[in-house]
Amino acid sequence: MQFEQPVPVTWVAGFIGAVLSGNQNLQATGLNEIHKVRPGDISFVDLEKYYDACLRSSASIIIIDKEVECPEGKALLVTEDPFSAYVKLVKHFRPFVPAAKMIADDVLIGEDTVIQPNVFIGHGVRIGDHCIIHPNVTLYDHTVIGNNVIIHAGAVIGADAFYYKKRGDREVAYDKLESCGRVVIEDDVEIGAGSTVDKGVSGDTIIGRGSKLDNLVHIGHGAVIGKNCLFAAQVGIGGKTIIEDNVTLWGQVGVSKDLTIGAGAVVLAQSGVPSSLKGGKVFFGYPAEDARYKRRELAWIKRIPEIWEKIKGLSQDAGERSKEKGER
Amino acid sequence: MQFEQPVPVTWVAGFIGAVLSGNQNLQATGLNEIHKVRPGDISFVDLEKYYDACLRSSASIIIIDKEVECPEGKALLVTEDPFSAYVKLVKHFRPFVPAAKMIADDVLIGEDTVIQPNVFIGHGVRIGDHCIIHPNVTLYDHTVIGNNVIIHAGAVIGADAFYYKKRGDREVAYDKLESCGRVVIEDDVEIGAGSTVDKGVSGDTIIGRGSKLDNLVHIGHGAVIGKNCLFAAQVGIGGKTIIEDNVTLWGQVGVSKDLTIGAGAVVLAQSGVPSSLKGGKVFFGYPAEDARYKRRELAWIKRIPEIWEKIKGLSQDAGERSKEKGER
Amino acid sequence: MQFEQPVPVTWVAGFIGAVLSGNQNLQATGLNEIHKVRPGDISFVDLEKYYDACLRSSASIIIIDKEVECPEGKALLVTEDPFSAYVKLVKHFRPFVPAAKMIADDVLIGEDTVIQPNVFIGHGVRIGDHCIIHPNVTLYDHTVIGNNVIIHAGAVIGADAFYYKKRGDREVAYDKLESCGRVVIEDDVEIGAGSTVDKGVSGDTIIGRGSKLDNLVHIGHGAVIGKNCLFAAQVGIGGKTIIEDNVTLWGQVGVSKDLTIGAGAVVLAQSGVPSSLKGGKVFFGYPAEDARYKRRELAWIKRIPEIWEKIKGLSQDAGERSKEKGER
Repeated sequence: MQFEQPVPVTWVAGFIGAVLSGNQNLQATGLNEIHKVRPGDISFVDLEKYYDACLRSSASIIIIDKEVECPEGKALLVTEDPFSAYVKLVKHFRPFVPAAKMIADDVLIGEDTVIQPNVFIGHGVRIGDHCIIHPNVTLYDHTVIGNNVIIHAGAVIGADAFYYKKRGDREVAYDKLESCGRVVIEDDVEIGAGSTVDKGVSGDTIIGRGSKLDNLVHIGHGAVIGKNCLFAAQVGIGGKTIIEDNVTLWGQVGVSKDLTIGAGAVVLAQSGVPSSLKGGKVFFGYPAEDARYKRRELAWIKRIPEIWEKIKGLSQDAGERSKEKGER
Repeated sequence: MQFEQPVPVTWVAGFIGAVLSGNQNLQATGLNEIHKVRPGDISFVDLEKYYDACLRSSASIIIIDKEVECPEGKALLVTEDPFSAYVKLVKHFRPFVPAAKMIADDVLIGEDTVIQPNVFIGHGVRIGDHCIIHPNVTLYDHTVIGNNVIIHAGAVIGADAFYYKKRGDREVAYDKLESCGRVVIEDDVEIGAGSTVDKGVSGDTIIGRGSKLDNLVHIGHGAVIGKNCLFAAQVGIGGKTIIEDNVTLWGQVGVSKDLTIGAGAVVLAQSGVPSSLKGGKVFFGYPAEDARYKRRELAWIKRIPEIWEKIKGLSQDAGERSKEKGER
Repeated sequence: MQFEQPVPVTWVAGFIGAVLSGNQNLQATGLNEIHKVRPGDISFVDLEKYYDACLRSSASIIIIDKEVECPEGKALLVTEDPFSAYVKLVKHFRPFVPAAKMIADDVLIGEDTVIQPNVFIGHGVRIGDHCIIHPNVTLYDHTVIGNNVIIHAGAVIGADAFYYKKRGDREVAYDKLESCGRVVIEDDVEIGAGSTVDKGVSGDTIIGRGSKLDNLVHIGHGAVIGKNCLFAAQVGIGGKTIIEDNVTLWGQVGVSKDLTIGAGAVVLAQSGVPSSLKGGKVFFGYPAEDARYKRRELAWIKRIPEIWEKIKGLSQDAGERSKEKGER
């Protein structure tokens, strides 16, 4: 998220109780997880293996759990528990405010947009023109919806990221990473009944222009879906995954987090995608591979009994030869 | 859909701006996609490979994008974009009317039927006797529900078909086919929490008498589910698929569109059904096959290392024999 | 379920029209299916193969469809249709009472708990402190929710078990087993948008302390989920399954009913679990097996063409040898 106005790093240090080193004059302009940082942002790191990536990222202010050398021009905020410090900042800058009404007072709704009964619309939501929002839909705070968008009944847009930090040493093992991102749904999108699109942890989850999602589809936090994609029913997309333009995913396809599917790819029903796929091809199976190759693989599996018979034949021949040889 | 009263074909031609040929005196009695047409219906075709099927179908009036010979007694409506003309007719005869209330004024609800709080019931919906509709359910316009039906919370009945026409040449690639069909739920059906049943494109999606759907099940547009079927949680059924009576689908089974599963079939959990299955048997795997056969296949896969060892043995023998022969 | 006060077995016999034998002085203290019975409980059996298990169970009072010898100190209630008798008792002791309001009058809600708009809360529901219940959530009657629980929009807690008795001889094949159990959600649990957790048939469905469920997850009736489990989106768990502590299930995993997954197990995305798994290991595939083993299996499948080539080579050698031998 970006702040409405810059925040002095000295104030941040005080607020989270951290020791400040490096550039004391910095003004923080946003708060982002490492995958989304921009210059001016505060980010955090609490695993030694990610120190380098974070220190060399665009983040200007880094909350860290160890005193290290501060990169030129940046600021470090050293504290025992950077995760909790980050969550404290999220809660301060994007607090959860209980709703007083079904539709918050500061919502912007465009012309010719129909809001059917019983739709919840949270604080700061913006909806464009010529949209239909069907009954029992939930739009969490700060969701942004373009023009000509249809959202079917029961869909949930903008629920929290499924993102926790494991605390090995405690009875309650997981701390929740509070999300401060949004969902942005571009023009001409249609979202099916009962589908769920989670907000980004710090950035936006985006459904690109003209894309169509069928029913009971799940889109994880911070995923970026391109333009003119088609996702059939019960597809699931993991967090921060990128689906480029014109991708078709058939029913029940599952796509893991943090990967990319290239433009124009087609993934056949029930396939599982554990790692990135190139564009322009048809994929199938688990792990999803070129569909032609995968079909041959299925055909080969059916030939194992034939292979077995051949081997039995060869073994018999060999046995007879050995016997023959012995007799000679 | 069938019209409330016949509509002169001459009016239709004028309304969609088409050139009329053939029988000018016809009265259109309905509007249907090619899969559902009856005599008196208007249908449309815009792909040369389907011309023949459409012209020879029961449709009396055909919207088409090329001048062809008109079959005896029928009428042709020639226009550049039959898809858009058809959508224009759907919007005219079954317009989307925003709801003024949670329960529309013209809804018919039977005796001893309980509507829990917060249920949305659209225009023209009919519900029989002794039903329970749990909270936060959405019943779109024109849904028909029989007697003794239970619909659990959050279910969505009658959302639009997931059906688009690709326009290769435009920034926004897909045009939505507006649906004018309905969902018909027969007596004694139970539908689980969060399940979604889409309306037919032009005909009815039917859930047959006595069938039971668990939670988060998806039923595509125009699917026809027989009597006394059991679908476990997270099953998905593609559009226009026919499931005959007494079929059992276990959890997370996916069934593709436009196919038939025969009466009494059982499909085991997580299986995928890409093509029609006969009745009376147990199926399993992807693509779903006779479960006994599939289990043997899994067992064969586990024997590949053994096969490999045998081949190594045979190769060694052969190698020794060659060597021996060489030495002789 | 346990009764609020003991009920004489003689009253029960009269209410369901059964012939009472054995101990006539018993007081029934609860009503439970065979898997959950405790001393004092009424249970039922109508399949000869389960007679023994039921008669030797902790149940004090057994509804049965045949006169058999009554175990010492117990009571038998003989009736033609024990299933219907049991359902009659469930309906009497836990009747479905239509809601008069969105939030029932007898609901208990703790301090600092936020109920967002449009949440349905049924009779007898208890919710602890510091919870957030997001919009359009449904909490069926008698649901129990601990402290610090977050339930996201559209989730449905406490819908009926998917549990029917097949009646082969009737047009409507299935009789519904009315559920009298509850859902109990312990402290620090988070439940994702659109997820569904069914009530137990007679006992409780439990989500253990600190466990986190992502969106569109389904938990079947009577399942017991341990502490600090993580279930990613679209996971499905069958009825009465036990998931021990610290189990992680990745996206779209399906777990069958009536089994146990041991503590600390990890099941990778899209895997299917048809039978119990030990704790502390990583599993994968269908049927889910040790992931290292399964990965080797996938690698072996890819080597089938190589195996085929080797066999062709060996067959050729053998053919040449036979020819050679013939020429000699």
